[in-house]
Amino acid sequence: MGGEDKVENGHAKKEEEEEMMMTVERVFESKEVPSWRQQLTLRAFMVSFVLSILFSFIVMKLNLTTGIIPSLNVSAGFLGFFFIKTWTKVLEKSGMLQVPFTRQENTVIQTCVVASSGIAFSGGFGSYLFGMSKRIAIQSGSTPGADDYKDPSLSWIIGFLFIVSFLGLLAVVPLRKIMIIDFKLTYPSGTATAHLINSFHMPEGAKLAKKQVKALGKFFSFSFLWGFFQWFYTAADSCGFASFPTLGLKAFENRFYFDFSAMYVGVGMICPYIVNISLLLGGILSWGLMWPLIEKKAGDWYSADLKPSSMHGLQGYRVFISIAMILGDGLYNFCKVLRRTLFGLYHQIRDKNSLPRVVNGSPTESSQLSFDDQRRTSLFLKDQVPTSFAVGGYIVIAIISIITLPHVFHQLKWYHILVMYLAAPTLAFCNAYGCGLTDWSLASTYGKLAIFVIGAWAGASHGGVLAGLAACGVMMNIVSTASDLTQDFKTGYLTLASPRSMFVSQVIGTAMGCVISPCVFWLFYKAFKDLGLSTSAYPAPYASIYRSMAMLAVEGFSSLPKNCLALCYGFFAASIVVNAIRDYVPKKYSRFIPIPMAMAIPFYLGSYFAIDMCVGSLILFLWERMDKTKADAFGPAVASGLICGDGIWTLPSAILALAGVKPPICMKFLSRAANNRVDGFLNSS
Amino acid sequence: MGGEDKVENGHAKKEEEEEMMMTVERVFESKEVPSWRQQLTLRAFMVSFVLSILFSFIVMKLNLTTGIIPSLNVSAGFLGFFFIKTWTKVLEKSGMLQVPFTRQENTVIQTCVVASSGIAFSGGFGSYLFGMSKRIAIQSGSTPGADDYKDPSLSWIIGFLFIVSFLGLLAVVPLRKIMIIDFKLTYPSGTATAHLINSFHMPEGAKLAKKQVKALGKFFSFSFLWGFFQWFYTAADSCGFASFPTLGLKAFENRFYFDFSAMYVGVGMICPYIVNISLLLGGILSWGLMWPLIEKKAGDWYSADLKPSSMHGLQGYRVFISIAMILGDGLYNFCKVLRRTLFGLYHQIRDKNSLPRVVNGSPTESSQLSFDDQRRTSLFLKDQVPTSFAVGGYIVIAIISIITLPHVFHQLKWYHILVMYLAAPTLAFCNAYGCGLTDWSLASTYGKLAIFVIGAWAGASHGGVLAGLAACGVMMNIVSTASDLTQDFKTGYLTLASPRSMFVSQVIGTAMGCVISPCVFWLFYKAFKDLGLSTSAYPAPYASIYRSMAMLAVEGFSSLPKNCLALCYGFFAASIVVNAIRDYVPKKYSRFIPIPMAMAIPFYLGSYFAIDMCVGSLILFLWERMDKTKADAFGPAVASGLICGDGIWTLPSAILALAGVKPPICMKFLSRAANNRVDGFLNSS
Repeated sequence: MGGEDKVENGHAKKEEEEEMMMTVERVFESKEVPSWRQQLTLRAFMVSFVLSILFSFIVMKLNLTTGIIPSLNVSAGFLGFFFIKTWTKVLEKSGMLQVPFTRQENTVIQTCVVASSGIAFSGGFGSYLFGMSKRIAIQSGSTPGADDYKDPSLSWIIGFLFIVSFLGLLAVVPLRKIMIIDFKLTYPSGTATAHLINSFHMPEGAKLAKKQVKALGKFFSFSFLWGFFQWFYTAADSCGFASFPTLGLKAFENRFYFDFSAMYVGVGMICPYIVNISLLLGGILSWGLMWPLIEKKAGDWYSADLKPSSMHGLQGYRVFISIAMILGDGLYNFCKVLRRTLFGLYHQIRDKNSLPRVVNGSPTESSQLSFDDQRRTSLFLKDQVPTSFAVGGYIVIAIISIITLPHVFHQLKWYHILVMYLAAPTLAFCNAYGCGLTDWSLASTYGKLAIFVIGAWAGASHGGVLAGLAACGVMMNIVSTASDLTQDFKTGYLTLASPRSMFVSQVIGTAMGCVISPCVFWLFYKAFKDLGLSTSAYPAPYASIYRSMAMLAVEGFSSLPKNCLALCYGFFAASIVVNAIRDYVPKKYSRFIPIPMAMAIPFYLGSYFAIDMCVGSLILFLWERMDKTKADAFGPAVASGLICGDGIWTLPSAILALAGVKPPICMKFLSRAANNRVDGFLNSS
Repeated sequence: MGGEDKVENGHAKKEEEEEMMMTVERVFESKEVPSWRQQLTLRAFMVSFVLSILFSFIVMKLNLTTGIIPSLNVSAGFLGFFFIKTWTKVLEKSGMLQVPFTRQENTVIQTCVVASSGIAFSGGFGSYLFGMSKRIAIQSGSTPGADDYKDPSLSWIIGFLFIVSFLGLLAVVPLRKIMIIDFKLTYPSGTATAHLINSFHMPEGAKLAKKQVKALGKFFSFSFLWGFFQWFYTAADSCGFASFPTLGLKAFENRFYFDFSAMYVGVGMICPYIVNISLLLGGILSWGLMWPLIEKKAGDWYSADLKPSSMHGLQGYRVFISIAMILGDGLYNFCKVLRRTLFGLYHQIRDKNSLPRVVNGSPTESSQLSFDDQRRTSLFLKDQVPTSFAVGGYIVIAIISIITLPHVFHQLKWYHILVMYLAAPTLAFCNAYGCGLTDWSLASTYGKLAIFVIGAWAGASHGGVLAGLAACGVMMNIVSTASDLTQDFKTGYLTLASPRSMFVSQVIGTAMGCVISPCVFWLFYKAFKDLGLSTSAYPAPYASIYRSMAMLAVEGFSSLPKNCLALCYGFFAASIVVNAIRDYVPKKYSRFIPIPMAMAIPFYLGSYFAIDMCVGSLILFLWERMDKTKADAFGPAVASGLICGDGIWTLPSAILALAGVKPPICMKFLSRAANNRVDGFLNSS
């Protein structure tokens, strides 16, 4: 740790003193980092269990109403702190406190809760898993054969989740180092959570740190109150600020609008400029240019009288071109990393000089690392989870699944599962990488890919619909866990939590989730008899959508709209070429070349969140131009405040929804013509 | 000018140097103030003429569509600068420029345009004057006798305006000094206009001034763009940010909401805290407490099945209690001023020492005045318009009107006019005083008073309806001109324009307006054959409302709702008592006692603009707490920017409306229940 010495030697100089004030770990230096075993306390897991139940309810509710799930990392960190702090405060007052509450313990709770509540999403209770049911099958317009549906039951769901959920966890372990230390990916939500946790545990006396906490608190309150304020105007779908046609109705139809999400403005402030610009470029290229052009071909390239959500129509282009670009970028980076990893391993074995070369590429680079980075890296690499253990575990569980899964879904053959498990680590890498760049997990996209590949492979006559949905489940669990848990490792990295304690926490959390989530779902399923029907308060929209996709898949790729496959090939290749150019031109040019992975996301979703993020970039840019020092010191705190406040707001908003409290007002946006008709209707009635 | 010396002597000291940077007139010291004759240039009046036509169109359009007219002072100042500057730039380049463009000339233009376009409002083309027509009479549900209507005609309108419009101007002249120098009233719009004009003409080299101009420009742009952005969402009435139920639907129904008006936030930043607090208190007392309580008496105190706008119902309480308070406050202050003026005059005659005592009360106070105030005061008092001239002119014109007006409206008797002309100066004083405190001219309220008094006096059988409306015209012209022109005098005071040149400019502007406005109205009247009908694009809503009030008035005060008169007496007395308390308790307590005049305004209009203004206060308060020096230096510039930007935006928005360009989107606010019905309707159609 030569770099550490260097900073300490310069202690007397004022400039460096100021610089030190900027480093979080200097502030924490007085606090001992507990061993990985000490980070795992009983009280942490008790709190985690309570929070897991709470979050599972929230996620399940969101699953079954709109299907849009925001990242809950921040809420988990915040509530974890709040619970334990209250607990320790009480114990402290009664003189019974033995172990002080540390930020590492806080991170362990957060990790456990995320792992557990993540299952509520990746378990597919609102999508593939419930899409298997007879109720959805009938609603999708077909009369299902005995092979084509499988109604939910507590027993097989728990079993299925236990088989597939631990794979993602094991796949993540070897990726951890590459993502966080080599690539230095941002993981905005994870970073924000870490800032939050750090600020909570900040020791007294650090002046700048206190100011940062104050800034965080201010923007946290603003973001929370802003979320609260927005809530009042969302009495129904397409009401409220999230449907504000800020750039006009025409642009809104093409999903270009600023949706007033404080969370994504904050995310934009944390992500590098090029990521935000890439997102916006991708949005302009797709929703601004390509989709309108393809739409003109309606009736030629694809049938003009399809539903807008039909995969045979425009939606097909969106999903598949987006997947093609993501796969192209992911594959390129996977190969690059593989080459670098093998090269590193080769040197490691030859030189017997393991650390600096793997971590930083070269020893000279190492000394340029800041004190924070050095301390974090050293602790992150201290308690290793052996790669052999992870690989071994992966193989063992894969073998178990290959044997047992066909008993759960007899439509799914052992070779389907084998192929998926061979591809899964690559895809898990892609997703964790993309999420690190953009904060956006594309688990459901990979799940859709599995539906199409396996569904088409199994074929309609052999229960391909169900095979596809089951395959989706396997895939989604792996890639979703991969991105969630790498996010957590970033939080752990920034809070000096031991990777080993985090791994244990993840295992425990995942096990919790495999039991809690199905039980919560079962409660909803039994309580609301019309669950999943489009007339219900719980329509579970994605259940029908996923089933529709599976039904399309069994007809094979040939059923895709015209030229879609050709376009996919083109964008796949373009994605690889752009990445290669980024790597081989000098840095001063390459930093202006957009990132295909980031560009691909708005292809599917539209540009609204890209616009939010660009607004965040713009704010940071202007701030940096006005006062660089201040922007650097307070930018992350402000961004974290924005993300956290909005994140925490999802909790009371979900509780309000569970309690049946509906917002009183709808802020509606109507074209002038529609408004005239509505005014006429309101006056007449 | 002892005070001036004092500041100059302390030139070397750094603190005072900094203080000097804060004074606008130091910056302008190098620029000679032209004589009052030099301030009146031909080019100024040519530009004024063009702008007068433009503004008359805008005001007329607003008159005939919604009846809500914002203050156009700022726009006039801005456009006056823009036109002349372009002109002088062109002349300068061609080497033909002889007289440089000064801020005094700019103020002269602004004053002339305000005087001229003011007639378009006070001429009542959208209210009392058009309310006399047969078309409106029939629409109001009665079959009018020959005595009960008078259709518009270019000749009598111009004649009528020439007779009544100059009275207000003459009534203002003696009030000028009291309002601006003795009372130091703020006149927010006038102050903002002056800041704008000063900033345009700022000499080079003043660092702080340049920064202030930059701040003004920034907030001007923001406010303008914000107005532009809001426009897109106002496809129909009750659409857009101005109908945003920020505090909930229930509060919105009682007119408690923040209407996102940048203009009123700016006005709030300029007004003293106590004014804004008084406004809010008044709103809470009336719309939060009294009206809901009175509403519960519906069916007892007044008939429950009246229209909401009926003067026999709740609206009657609003209008008359508001008038009672305004009259109480106005009367108290009028008496106070009269006493002080007489006292001052007495001393003046006795001591032959005129200036300091009248201006500042005592010589010691005078030396405490800032350099700015001293310079402004000295110039403001240099070119006097003799009070004897004003009083003489008032009497001459009053005699002419008393003789001629009954020939125009034979329903109006000479003694009606005499009484009005006796009361008018008092009411003109009240309005100019209230406007100076709050930026709100209550001309139409005084007009309503005239309708009721004269209408009731004349009686239904003697054409009381028409007499009332004509009386309204006489009264509105006087009080509206009084507030508008005192506002202008404030601008003149702050830009060192000579009161004499301003007076000449006002005379010329008024004469212009008396011709331009009727012609513009005539154009509308001839072009849109359904003008005034409720189905028309130009419904002129106030024309019907004014006629309805006049119809009510002829039935006498006994037709007022139950207990209304008693409440009026109570509030009239309370208003006087509160004022007396404010004057007789020590200053440290009196500054927490609300001002009745300010409280009365939301009685009638509701609290929305009071909330805007309190937001402005809050911003300034927080700013002052964070950085007092900066807030003091930049507060007025920011406020002016906000007011001006929004003010200027009314121009393009009116032009868009005239061109028939309608906003594309309606941002609508519906209760959840209403939204469900609307969604059902939209889905079914």
